[in-house]
Amino acid sequence: MDNEAIKSATKLNPPTPYQAIEEGGVASARGFSAAGIYVGLKKKVGILDLALILADEPCPSAAVFTKSVFSAPPVIVSRKHLDGVSYGHARALLMNSGNANASTGQQGMDYVNKNLKHAAELLGCQTKEVLMASTGVIGLQMPADLLEENLERLISVASREGGNAAATAIMTTDTHPKECAVSYISHDPAFEGQEFRVGGMAKGAGMMMPDMATLLAAITTDAPLSPSLAYRALKTAVDISFNKVSVDSDTSTNDTCFFMASGKAAKDNTNFEEGSTAYLELLGALEVVCNNLARQIAADGEGATRLITVNVDGAHDALDADKAARSVANSPLVKTAIFGHDANWGRIAMALGKSGADFAQENVSINFLGLPVCHQGSPVDFDEEEMLRRFEAPEIVININLGAGSASTTMWTCDLTHEYVTINGDYRT
Amino acid sequence: MDNEAIKSATKLNPPTPYQAIEEGGVASARGFSAAGIYVGLKKKVGILDLALILADEPCPSAAVFTKSVFSAPPVIVSRKHLDGVSYGHARALLMNSGNANASTGQQGMDYVNKNLKHAAELLGCQTKEVLMASTGVIGLQMPADLLEENLERLISVASREGGNAAATAIMTTDTHPKECAVSYISHDPAFEGQEFRVGGMAKGAGMMMPDMATLLAAITTDAPLSPSLAYRALKTAVDISFNKVSVDSDTSTNDTCFFMASGKAAKDNTNFEEGSTAYLELLGALEVVCNNLARQIAADGEGATRLITVNVDGAHDALDADKAARSVANSPLVKTAIFGHDANWGRIAMALGKSGADFAQENVSINFLGLPVCHQGSPVDFDEEEMLRRFEAPEIVININLGAGSASTTMWTCDLTHEYVTINGDYRT
Repeated sequence: MDNEAIKSATKLNPPTPYQAIEEGGVASARGFSAAGIYVGLKKKVGILDLALILADEPCPSAAVFTKSVFSAPPVIVSRKHLDGVSYGHARALLMNSGNANASTGQQGMDYVNKNLKHAAELLGCQTKEVLMASTGVIGLQMPADLLEENLERLISVASREGGNAAATAIMTTDTHPKECAVSYISHDPAFEGQEFRVGGMAKGAGMMMPDMATLLAAITTDAPLSPSLAYRALKTAVDISFNKVSVDSDTSTNDTCFFMASGKAAKDNTNFEEGSTAYLELLGALEVVCNNLARQIAADGEGATRLITVNVDGAHDALDADKAARSVANSPLVKTAIFGHDANWGRIAMALGKSGADFAQENVSINFLGLPVCHQGSPVDFDEEEMLRRFEAPEIVININLGAGSASTTMWTCDLTHEYVTINGDYRT
Repeated sequence: MDNEAIKSATKLNPPTPYQAIEEGGVASARGFSAAGIYVGLKKKVGILDLALILADEPCPSAAVFTKSVFSAPPVIVSRKHLDGVSYGHARALLMNSGNANASTGQQGMDYVNKNLKHAAELLGCQTKEVLMASTGVIGLQMPADLLEENLERLISVASREGGNAAATAIMTTDTHPKECAVSYISHDPAFEGQEFRVGGMAKGAGMMMPDMATLLAAITTDAPLSPSLAYRALKTAVDISFNKVSVDSDTSTNDTCFFMASGKAAKDNTNFEEGSTAYLELLGALEVVCNNLARQIAADGEGATRLITVNVDGAHDALDADKAARSVANSPLVKTAIFGHDANWGRIAMALGKSGADFAQENVSINFLGLPVCHQGSPVDFDEEEMLRRFEAPEIVININLGAGSASTTMWTCDLTHEYVTINGDYRT
């Protein structure tokens, strides 16, 4: 990640310069260690499948969870541990791939409770200070005792350098681990000159389509935040990053994004106040990290060959902008056309038409890979050869102006390919 | 279509025996003729691309149209011709493939107006008595004069036997024309012993996914109906047939279903009354024809190898039943798993979980191809080899009980295959 990309991505707090931390990840912030080991949840022997994010001591933590009626036991238990309000204190995050522990009923629930209790005993903290997230096959019971037998080893290998192993251990069909970390110097008079860090990891949503991805993410910071402010910051950042990947991350059975704030970078015990410069700086850093991870997820969708960025401007309001961008980003016809290097913008018009956003077709203009293709609802001739050349870019940018107002948004998705069908035609077996 | 299939499909009026008309179609009902010719809208020379359904004289007619904001000019003009209330009188339906005439602005609108006016002159009827529907590439102007030059020839070849040519001329990526017709003897005292017919044709929605299909259909009957009753009957039948194919047919740019009632089978001029036995009999016939065409469309989705039927029972209400069934039928992960013969029912649970339907996961049971896979929210062991054998069936049936009430519904879709990606990666070029 270059710093130019970081700057341009920051909407929440533009003026602060954020620096990428080289090879940074979820354990880059002070006060955290991480680990990733192989315990046998994945079929392939030796592939990391169990991760731990460990705070030196229990610290303010928050989470956003799936809203699925089929929420998995780890989601249900973690939500309960965070007092049902999605924020509180946590010492450790346990994350596994290979099995989602979803649709597993009471047996799945007992499994999570038993293992989190065991982990807490090993760590010398309260059971409710251990949280969990799982991803993998749905409808399969977890192998008995497997986690319990491996928890001690997992904790023993946790280190400041363990972020990459942890990010690797939560992968499913991702082709590479996804990590990002930044640092910045505060200009808030109360924290002048102090350096803060935000780092994180995420697992790709497999399928870049609504409602079926499993998105797991863990973000840490050494900034001092109260639990409730940590939650508000997380919610703000997630809404404009992970929730803008066309994954509808709030709807799969296991989607979870954790956030822990150690406070270890602050020279005294004063927490950031909402609305303060220090808070806005942190929000910007969170946005940069979440955006970067979200784009990595979209670009690494199952079988994807292209990252697709959908920019909607001129919407009547933010909700309409989201509806329009989401409808285009979710359209299999748009996604297959891009896979086939076919600038079939009519499919974009079709997706906009059914989005539920309020606009008039004669006011809509569409720009595909920098070339105007539709002006005020009517086709514009374009150079097909030039368009084909532009399809070689790794990122396909679609700009849409609805001509109905001044709201805008950005969404990320990927193309829909043969490889996607291959992967998902035979995932479980 | 065998008569057993007809009987089982009839929900609206179970007791009436409907007989399939062999090789029947849109011109099987008395008072109609049809034609399909090649004019050059499709790239491949000689492939039929322009269809006509002609009533002997202007007759009560109705239509349901897409609700897309990007409604195509033929939709906008036809709606206007039906007095903005979607019913009135019509003499002729003009339907073309090869070009959707959508996103074509005022030029596209002028094109439709000019050609319908010309057709009306040739037919000696009012311009508003000619309706039009188009399907094909979006965002491309229609070739000037092409229709006008061919209208006279089109009208001259219309015949009672022209249904198959018409059904062929509206195909896009469909692999075969879709037709269906039935006859029945009325038991209504007012029409005792009289024979009525309902026939129709449809074009597949290409992609069996929400919001992007173009569904065109035309249904005719020789029963006597007022325009407004024709509309109500059509709406009732479409809601439980075409709208239950996972196509969200109310949302593409061109979706249109026409219905014309010649009244030619009735011995006097009395129209059916709403709620009468005669009306219910007709409704059942309409349902049978629309259901049959809908299932043909689902089974012939782009690249499809299997028809998928999703039955939802035990829903809290009809809306919840629809939400749950639609979410499963629209899930690319469910559809790719079925393509791969993988009984990954966890994806069904996931799709239900995000559907927005009201239920508790511990009350949900799922039956896949006749084998229980999930009982009360927990996995049920099943015989994988037996399941693989059952995947050889041409129709994959998923039964879901939400355990939340007594409402039910059925939806149809198809699997998602490599061939789908191939077709849609290179549709326009």
